Amino acid sequence: MPSIFTRIIAGEIPCHKVYEDEHAIAFLDIGPLSRGHVLVVPKEERAKLHELSDASAAALGRAVRTVARAVVEATGCADYNVLQNNGAAAHQAVMHVHFHVIPKYADGSGLGIRWDAGTAPADAAELAAAMRAAVR
Amino acid sequence: MPSIFTRIIAGEIPCHKVYEDEHAIAFLDIGPLSRGHVLVVPKEERAKLHELSDASAAALGRAVRTVARAVVEATGCADYNVLQNNGAAAHQAVMHVHFHVIPKYADGSGLGIRWDAGTAPADAAELAAAMRAAVR
Repeated sequence: MPSIFTRIIAGEIPCHKVYEDEHAIAFLDIGPLSRGHVLVVPKEERAKLHELSDASAAALGRAVRTVARAVVEATGCADYNVLQNNGAAAHQAVMHVHFHVIPKYADGSGLGIRWDAGTAPADAAELAAAMRAAVR
Repeated sequence: MPSIFTRIIAGEIPCHKVYEDEHAIAFLDIGPLSRGHVLVVPKEERAKLHELSDASAAALGRAVRTVARAVVEATGCADYNVLQNNGAAAHQAVMHVHFHVIPKYADGSGLGIRWDAGTAPADAAELAAAMRAAVR
């Protein structure tokens, strides 16, 4: 499932690169939600986060932290959202895992969030048990 | 800066635990946006993602992937958002790093996103260079 990110990783499509290591690359989003919006992308070609290998997931965790530090320093904006979408229903547009690092400025520019919180389900204990059983 | 998460990690406040390793813990959110909404929290006590150590950031990346896999399997919902908020302006409520894993169901329940994309800034090359210089 090569995507546009595969071609960016291969250097076939230019980008404004922010960071690169063995497992990940980061560059400015071309349609930013705010100034300094960066994408952090694993070189491992997977559509969704839960499909990543241990090595890729760990390297990506470190890379997102490193990029967030650079974004904060370069923009001077210490508030930001990190977002990673999985599936078209969840707003994923490119089917290759990517984390957004999106500065949130005092003027409100950045990610807009709607937070319709509910209450814990009646079967919360059973749901958590099913998740624990699914950990591997 | 102990928060309610420090007390959950210490076992002083109960939770519906989903996962735990040396560096991270995960449990059901008590105010879920959708069924199966889980929080993944590093044991390292830091307010924002960019403040995490290498070891903590890497372990957290792996833990979020592992928890996402368990959430997908236990809920049967393969679409989800991963969100991590930094600062009150960016919707952070507890000042201890946490990743949300939020299933996005066909009925629309889950995270609501407003995506007001702009265009690349005129000084994109300089901005990316400033970020590269800030990587450490």
